[in-house]
Amino acid sequence: MPHIDLPQGLPGILGPMAFSPETARPMSELVEVLLRGDNTLTSGERELIAAYVSYHNDCHFCHSSHGAAAAHHLDGDAQLVTDVKHDADRAAISDKLKALLAIAGKARVGGQAVSAEDVALARERGATDREIHDTVLITAAFCMFNRYVDGLATWAPEEADAYEAIGKRLAEEGYVTMGEQLSRISSRAA
Amino acid sequence: MPHIDLPQGLPGILGPMAFSPETARPMSELVEVLLRGDNTLTSGERELIAAYVSYHNDCHFCHSSHGAAAAHHLDGDAQLVTDVKHDADRAAISDKLKALLAIAGKARVGGQAVSAEDVALARERGATDREIHDTVLITAAFCMFNRYVDGLATWAPEEADAYEAIGKRLAEEGYVTMGEQLSRISSRAA
Repeated sequence: MPHIDLPQGLPGILGPMAFSPETARPMSELVEVLLRGDNTLTSGERELIAAYVSYHNDCHFCHSSHGAAAAHHLDGDAQLVTDVKHDADRAAISDKLKALLAIAGKARVGGQAVSAEDVALARERGATDREIHDTVLITAAFCMFNRYVDGLATWAPEEADAYEAIGKRLAEEGYVTMGEQLSRISSRAA
Repeated sequence: MPHIDLPQGLPGILGPMAFSPETARPMSELVEVLLRGDNTLTSGERELIAAYVSYHNDCHFCHSSHGAAAAHHLDGDAQLVTDVKHDADRAAISDKLKALLAIAGKARVGGQAVSAEDVALARERGATDREIHDTVLITAAFCMFNRYVDGLATWAPEEADAYEAIGKRLAEEGYVTMGEQLSRISSRAA
Protein backbone atom coordinates (compact mmCIF):
# COMPACT_ATOMS: atom_id res chain seq x y z
CA MET A 1 0.00 0.00 0.00
CA PRO A 2 1.36 3.44 -0.88
CA HIS A 3 2.59 5.54 2.05
CA ILE A 4 0.20 8.37 1.15
CA ASP A 5 -3.27 8.52 -0.37
CA LEU A 6 -2.61 8.43 -4.14
CA PRO A 7 -5.11 8.28 -7.02
CA GLN A 8 -6.05 4.61 -7.54
CA GLY A 9 -5.06 2.43 -10.46
CA LEU A 10 -2.09 4.43 -11.71
CA PRO A 11 1.11 2.37 -11.76
CA GLY A 12 4.50 3.54 -10.51
CA ILE A 13 5.35 7.21 -10.90
CA LEU A 14 1.93 8.08 -12.34
CA GLY A 15 0.22 8.07 -8.95
CA PRO A 16 2.54 10.67 -7.38
CA MET A 17 2.55 12.64 -10.65
CA ALA A 18 -1.24 12.84 -10.59
CA PHE A 19 -1.06 13.79 -6.90
CA SER A 20 1.38 16.61 -7.68
CA PRO A 21 0.97 17.91 -11.25
CA GLU A 22 3.00 21.05 -10.53
CA THR A 23 6.14 18.98 -9.96
CA ALA A 24 5.18 16.34 -12.57
CA ARG A 25 5.37 18.90 -15.38
CA PRO A 26 9.06 19.85 -15.06
CA MET A 27 9.98 16.21 -14.29
CA SER A 28 8.29 15.05 -17.50
CA GLU A 29 9.97 17.81 -19.50
CA LEU A 30 13.36 16.84 -18.10
CA VAL A 31 13.01 13.17 -19.00
CA GLU A 32 11.67 14.04 -22.46
CA VAL A 33 14.79 16.11 -23.25
CA LEU A 34 17.11 13.54 -21.69
CA LEU A 35 15.74 10.43 -23.40
CA ARG A 36 14.08 11.70 -26.57
CA GLY A 37 15.72 15.08 -27.35
CA ASP A 38 18.23 15.58 -30.18
CA ASN A 39 21.34 13.62 -29.29
CA THR A 40 24.23 11.62 -30.73
CA LEU A 41 23.23 8.82 -28.36
CA THR A 42 20.14 7.06 -29.71
CA SER A 43 16.99 6.94 -27.60
CA GLY A 44 17.57 3.19 -27.36
CA GLU A 45 21.01 3.78 -25.81
CA ARG A 46 19.65 6.41 -23.43
CA GLU A 47 16.73 4.21 -22.36
CA LEU A 48 19.27 1.42 -21.72
CA ILE A 49 21.16 3.74 -19.34
CA ALA A 50 17.88 4.61 -17.58
CA ALA A 51 16.89 0.93 -17.31
CA TYR A 52 20.37 -0.09 -16.13
CA VAL A 53 20.45 2.52 -13.36
CA SER A 54 16.88 1.73 -12.28
CA TYR A 55 17.58 -2.01 -12.23
CA HIS A 56 20.59 -1.56 -9.97
CA ASN A 57 18.57 0.83 -7.79
CA ASP A 58 16.06 -2.03 -7.54
CA CYS A 59 13.15 0.05 -8.83
CA HIS A 60 10.82 -2.48 -10.44
CA PHE A 61 8.47 -0.04 -12.16
CA CYS A 62 11.25 2.13 -13.62
CA HIS A 63 13.54 -0.62 -14.86
CA SER A 64 10.62 -2.56 -16.32
CA SER A 65 9.04 0.38 -18.13
CA HIS A 66 12.31 1.92 -19.39
CA GLY A 67 13.62 -1.55 -20.23
CA ALA A 68 10.50 -2.08 -22.33
CA ALA A 69 10.96 1.34 -23.96
CA ALA A 70 14.60 0.45 -24.73
CA ALA A 71 13.55 -2.87 -26.24
CA HIS A 72 10.99 -1.09 -28.40
CA HIS A 73 13.70 1.24 -29.72
CA LEU A 74 16.01 -1.77 -30.29
CA ASP A 75 13.74 -3.71 -32.66
CA GLY A 76 12.10 -5.57 -29.80
CA ASP A 77 15.34 -7.08 -28.48
CA ALA A 78 14.26 -7.65 -24.88
CA GLN A 79 17.09 -10.14 -24.36
CA LEU A 80 19.68 -7.43 -25.04
CA VAL A 81 18.03 -5.22 -22.42
CA THR A 82 18.14 -8.07 -19.89
CA ASP A 83 21.80 -8.72 -20.76
CA VAL A 84 22.68 -5.06 -20.17
CA LYS A 85 20.90 -5.03 -16.82
CA HIS A 86 22.64 -8.19 -15.63
CA ASP A 87 26.14 -7.73 -17.02
CA ALA A 88 26.62 -4.74 -19.31
CA ASP A 89 30.26 -5.57 -20.03
CA ARG A 90 29.34 -8.85 -21.72
CA ALA A 91 26.29 -7.52 -23.57
CA ALA A 92 26.25 -7.01 -27.36
CA ILE A 93 26.57 -3.22 -27.20
CA SER A 94 29.33 -0.84 -28.33
CA ASP A 95 32.50 -0.40 -26.29
CA LYS A 96 31.60 3.28 -25.97
CA LEU A 97 28.24 2.45 -24.41
CA LYS A 98 29.92 -0.02 -22.05
CA ALA A 99 32.22 2.77 -20.83
CA LEU A 100 29.24 5.13 -20.42
CA LEU A 101 27.36 2.48 -18.45
CA ALA A 102 30.42 2.10 -16.21
CA ILE A 103 30.18 5.86 -15.49
CA ALA A 104 26.45 5.43 -14.83
CA GLY A 105 27.17 2.57 -12.44
CA LYS A 106 29.54 4.79 -10.47
CA ALA A 107 27.36 7.93 -10.48
CA ARG A 108 24.42 5.82 -9.32
CA VAL A 109 26.29 5.11 -6.10
CA GLY A 110 27.49 8.70 -5.71
CA GLY A 111 28.83 11.51 -7.86
CA GLN A 112 32.28 11.39 -6.36
CA ALA A 113 32.67 7.73 -7.34
CA VAL A 114 33.10 8.76 -11.00
CA SER A 115 36.85 8.91 -11.63
CA ALA A 116 38.97 10.71 -14.21
CA GLU A 117 39.96 7.24 -15.45
CA ASP A 118 36.32 6.26 -16.04
CA VAL A 119 35.84 9.41 -18.09
CA ALA A 120 39.14 8.99 -19.96
CA LEU A 121 38.15 5.47 -21.01
CA ALA A 122 34.80 6.67 -22.33
CA ARG A 123 36.53 9.44 -24.27
CA GLU A 124 39.12 6.99 -25.67
CA ARG A 125 36.19 4.95 -26.94
CA GLY A 126 34.71 7.92 -28.73
CA ALA A 127 32.37 9.50 -26.17
CA THR A 128 31.94 13.27 -26.43
CA ASP A 129 31.62 15.72 -23.54
CA ARG A 130 27.91 15.97 -24.32
CA GLU A 131 27.50 12.19 -24.11
CA ILE A 132 29.40 12.04 -20.81
CA HIS A 133 27.30 14.91 -19.46
CA ASP A 134 24.08 13.25 -20.54
CA THR A 135 25.08 9.89 -19.07
CA VAL A 136 25.73 11.51 -15.68
CA LEU A 137 22.48 13.48 -15.79
CA ILE A 138 20.34 10.53 -16.95
CA THR A 139 21.84 8.53 -14.07
CA ALA A 140 21.23 11.34 -11.59
CA ALA A 141 17.67 11.87 -12.82
CA PHE A 142 16.83 8.18 -12.43
CA CYS A 143 18.28 8.23 -8.93
CA MET A 144 15.53 10.82 -8.38
CA PHE A 145 12.72 8.99 -10.20
CA ASN A 146 13.57 5.66 -8.52
CA ARG A 147 13.46 7.21 -5.04
CA TYR A 148 10.22 9.05 -5.82
CA VAL A 149 8.54 5.83 -6.96
CA ASP A 150 9.78 3.59 -4.15
CA GLY A 151 10.02 6.19 -1.37
CA LEU A 152 6.22 6.51 -1.55
CA ALA A 153 5.74 2.72 -1.91
CA THR A 154 3.74 3.08 -5.11
CA TRP A 155 1.96 0.13 -6.66
CA ALA A 156 3.29 -1.41 -9.88
CA PRO A 157 2.43 -4.52 -11.91
CA GLU A 158 4.77 -7.44 -11.18
CA GLU A 159 4.75 -9.26 -14.51
CA ALA A 160 6.98 -8.22 -17.44
CA ASP A 161 4.11 -8.45 -19.96
CA ALA A 162 2.33 -5.54 -18.34
CA TYR A 163 5.16 -3.24 -19.42
CA GLU A 164 5.13 -3.94 -23.15
CA ALA A 165 2.33 -1.52 -23.94
CA ILE A 166 3.85 1.05 -21.58
CA GLY A 167 7.28 0.75 -23.23
CA LYS A 168 5.80 1.10 -26.71
CA ARG A 169 3.91 4.25 -25.73
CA LEU A 170 6.91 5.81 -24.03
CA ALA A 171 9.15 5.03 -27.00
CA GLU A 172 6.67 6.30 -29.60
CA GLU A 173 4.90 9.17 -27.86
CA GLY A 174 7.29 10.22 -25.13
CA TYR A 175 7.02 11.66 -21.70
CA VAL A 176 5.35 15.03 -21.86
CA THR A 177 1.89 13.52 -22.16
CA MET A 178 2.91 10.41 -20.22
CA GLY A 179 0.32 10.79 -17.51
CA GLU A 180 -2.51 11.00 -19.98
CA GLN A 181 -1.20 8.12 -22.09
CA LEU A 182 -0.60 5.71 -19.26
CA SER A 183 -3.86 6.40 -17.53
CA ARG A 184 -5.56 5.42 -20.80
CA ILE A 185 -3.63 2.13 -20.78
CA SER A 186 -4.48 1.56 -17.13
CA SER A 187 -8.17 2.20 -17.63
CA ARG A 188 -8.23 -0.17 -20.63
CA ALA A 189 -6.46 -2.84 -18.54
CA ALA A 190 -8.86 -2.36 -15.62
CA MET B 1 39.25 19.81 -12.72
CA PRO B 2 35.78 19.09 -14.12
CA HIS B 3 35.44 15.85 -16.10
CA ILE B 4 34.15 17.76 -19.15
CA ASP B 5 34.85 21.19 -20.61
CA LEU B 6 32.47 23.48 -18.70
CA PRO B 7 32.14 27.28 -18.87
CA GLN B 8 34.78 28.76 -16.54
CA GLY B 9 34.14 30.49 -13.23
CA LEU B 10 30.67 29.14 -12.51
CA PRO B 11 30.50 27.28 -9.20
CA GLY B 12 28.79 23.93 -8.65
CA ILE B 13 25.70 23.18 -10.69
CA LEU B 14 25.92 26.42 -12.66
CA GLY B 15 28.67 25.11 -14.95
CA PRO B 16 26.67 22.08 -16.14
CA MET B 17 23.50 24.18 -16.27
CA ALA B 18 25.21 26.68 -18.58
CA PHE B 19 26.57 23.75 -20.62
CA SER B 20 23.06 22.31 -21.00
CA PRO B 21 20.36 25.01 -20.77
CA GLU B 22 17.67 22.71 -22.20
CA THR B 23 17.91 20.44 -19.14
CA ALA B 24 18.66 23.33 -16.74
CA ARG B 25 15.26 24.92 -17.38
CA PRO B 26 13.05 22.06 -16.11
CA MET B 27 15.49 21.35 -13.26
CA SER B 28 15.28 24.98 -12.11
CA GLU B 29 11.50 24.95 -12.37
CA LEU B 30 11.32 21.77 -10.32
CA VAL B 31 13.46 23.12 -7.49
CA GLU B 32 11.56 26.43 -7.52
CA VAL B 33 8.24 24.62 -6.95
CA LEU B 34 9.75 22.27 -4.38
CA LEU B 35 11.54 24.84 -2.23
CA ARG B 36 9.67 28.08 -2.84
CA GLY B 37 6.18 27.13 -4.06
CA ASP B 38 3.05 27.41 -1.90
CA ASN B 39 3.39 24.92 0.93
CA THR B 40 2.54 24.27 4.57
CA LEU B 41 6.25 23.59 5.11
CA THR B 42 8.16 26.87 5.18
CA SER B 43 10.93 27.50 2.66
CA GLY B 44 13.32 27.40 5.62
CA GLU B 45 12.15 23.89 6.52
CA ARG B 46 12.36 22.73 2.92
CA GLU B 47 15.85 24.21 2.44
CA LEU B 48 16.87 22.39 5.63
CA ILE B 49 15.74 19.10 4.09
CA ALA B 50 17.72 19.91 0.92
CA ALA B 51 20.83 20.86 2.92
CA TYR B 52 20.52 17.78 5.16
CA VAL B 53 20.28 15.38 2.21
CA SER B 54 23.13 17.10 0.35
CA TYR B 55 25.35 17.08 3.44
CA HIS B 56 24.88 13.35 3.92
CA ASN B 57 25.46 12.82 0.19
CA ASP B 58 28.72 14.70 0.75
CA CYS B 59 27.98 17.34 -1.90
CA HIS B 60 29.89 20.41 -0.74
CA PHE B 61 28.39 22.93 -3.16
CA CYS B 62 24.79 21.83 -2.59
CA HIS B 63 24.86 21.53 1.19
CA SER B 64 26.73 24.83 1.53
CA SER B 65 24.47 26.82 -0.78
CA HIS B 66 21.18 25.33 0.44
CA GLY B 67 22.41 25.50 4.03
CA ALA B 68 23.07 29.21 3.47
CA ALA B 69 19.63 29.65 1.90
CA ALA B 70 18.06 27.85 4.89
CA ALA B 71 19.94 30.10 7.32
CA HIS B 72 18.75 33.16 5.42
CA HIS B 73 15.14 32.00 5.78
CA LEU B 74 15.76 31.24 9.49
CA ASP B 75 16.82 34.74 10.56
CA GLY B 76 20.46 33.98 9.86
CA ASP B 77 20.68 31.06 12.26
CA ALA B 78 23.61 29.24 10.64
CA GLN B 79 24.24 27.27 13.85
CA LEU B 80 20.80 25.66 13.61
CA VAL B 81 21.57 24.60 10.04
CA THR B 82 24.86 23.05 11.17
CA ASP B 83 23.07 21.30 14.05
CA VAL B 84 20.52 19.80 11.66
CA LYS B 85 23.22 18.56 9.30
CA HIS B 86 25.20 16.93 12.10
CA ASP B 87 22.43 15.52 14.29
CA ALA B 88 18.89 16.47 13.30
CA ASP B 89 17.32 14.64 16.23
CA ARG B 90 19.03 16.93 18.77
CA ALA B 91 18.52 20.15 16.81
CA ALA B 92 16.07 22.86 17.92
CA ILE B 93 13.45 22.04 15.29
CA SER B 94 9.90 20.70 15.56
CA ASP B 95 9.24 17.02 16.21
CA LYS B 96 7.37 16.92 12.91
CA LEU B 97 10.41 18.17 11.01
CA LYS B 98 12.59 15.62 12.80
CA ALA B 99 10.31 12.83 11.59
CA LEU B 100 10.35 14.24 8.04
CA LEU B 101 14.16 14.42 8.13
CA ALA B 102 14.22 10.78 9.24
CA ILE B 103 12.19 9.93 6.11
CA ALA B 104 14.63 12.02 4.05
CA GLY B 105 17.57 10.17 5.60
CA LYS B 106 16.05 6.84 4.54
CA ALA B 107 14.95 7.93 1.03
CA ARG B 108 18.44 9.35 0.44
CA VAL B 109 19.84 5.82 0.76
CA GLY B 110 17.07 4.26 -1.33
CA GLY B 111 13.32 4.57 -1.77
CA GLN B 112 12.60 1.15 -0.32
CA ALA B 113 14.33 2.09 2.93
CA VAL B 114 11.37 4.31 3.87
CA SER B 115 9.13 2.22 6.12
CA ALA B 116 5.45 2.43 7.01
CA GLU B 117 6.63 3.13 10.58
CA ASP B 118 8.69 6.13 9.48
CA VAL B 119 5.63 7.54 7.73
CA ALA B 120 3.29 6.71 10.63
CA LEU B 121 5.56 8.60 13.05
CA ALA B 122 5.62 11.67 10.80
CA ARG B 123 1.82 11.56 10.53
CA GLU B 124 1.45 11.14 14.31
CA ARG B 125 3.51 14.31 14.67
CA GLY B 126 1.19 16.23 12.37
CA ALA B 127 2.68 15.74 8.91
CA THR B 128 0.19 15.73 6.02
CA ASP B 129 0.32 13.53 2.92
CA ARG B 130 1.47 16.58 0.97
CA GLU B 131 4.34 17.18 3.40
CA ILE B 132 5.40 13.52 3.28
CA HIS B 133 5.23 13.58 -0.53
CA ASP B 134 7.27 16.76 -0.71
CA THR B 135 9.88 15.44 1.72
CA VAL B 136 10.39 12.34 -0.43
CA LEU B 137 10.54 14.36 -3.64
CA ILE B 138 12.91 17.02 -2.25
CA THR B 139 15.17 14.18 -1.10
CA ALA B 140 14.94 12.43 -4.45
CA ALA B 141 15.59 15.66 -6.35
CA PHE B 142 18.70 16.42 -4.30
CA CYS B 143 19.95 12.89 -4.91
CA MET B 144 19.83 14.01 -8.56
CA PHE B 145 21.38 17.47 -8.08
CA ASN B 146 24.16 16.11 -5.85
CA ARG B 147 25.14 13.45 -8.41
CA TYR B 148 24.99 15.96 -11.26
CA VAL B 149 27.33 18.36 -9.42
CA ASP B 150 29.83 15.76 -8.21
CA GLY B 151 29.53 13.23 -11.06
CA LEU B 152 31.02 15.89 -13.35
CA ALA B 153 33.59 16.96 -10.74
CA THR B 154 32.50 20.61 -10.86
CA TRP B 155 34.47 23.32 -9.11
CA ALA B 156 33.05 24.96 -5.96
CA PRO B 157 34.42 27.41 -3.39
CA GLU B 158 35.70 25.68 -0.25
CA GLU B 159 35.05 28.34 2.37
CA ALA B 160 31.64 28.83 4.01
CA ASP B 161 31.76 32.64 3.56
CA ALA B 162 31.54 32.28 -0.19
CA TYR B 163 28.04 30.86 0.17
CA GLU B 164 26.42 33.67 2.11
CA ALA B 165 25.68 35.82 -0.91
CA ILE B 166 24.54 32.75 -2.84
CA GLY B 167 22.18 31.67 -0.04
CA LYS B 168 20.71 35.16 0.25
CA ARG B 169 20.02 35.33 -3.50
CA LEU B 170 18.49 31.84 -3.61
CA ALA B 171 16.28 32.61 -0.61
CA GLU B 172 15.16 35.98 -1.91
CA GLU B 173 15.03 35.54 -5.66
CA GLY B 174 14.70 31.83 -6.16
CA TYR B 175 15.82 29.32 -8.72
CA VAL B 176 14.25 30.12 -12.04
CA THR B 177 16.74 32.87 -12.79
CA MET B 178 19.44 31.19 -10.72
CA GLY B 179 21.96 30.92 -13.55
CA GLU B 180 21.74 34.59 -14.29
CA GLN B 181 21.89 35.61 -10.62
CA LEU B 182 24.83 33.48 -9.66
CA SER B 183 26.88 34.34 -12.68
CA ARG B 184 26.48 37.99 -11.66
CA ILE B 185 27.81 37.12 -8.20
CA SER B 186 30.66 35.12 -9.72
CA SER B 187 31.65 37.91 -12.06
CA ARG B 188 31.62 40.43 -9.22
CA ALA B 189 33.77 38.09 -7.12
CA ALA B 190 36.21 37.50 -10.01
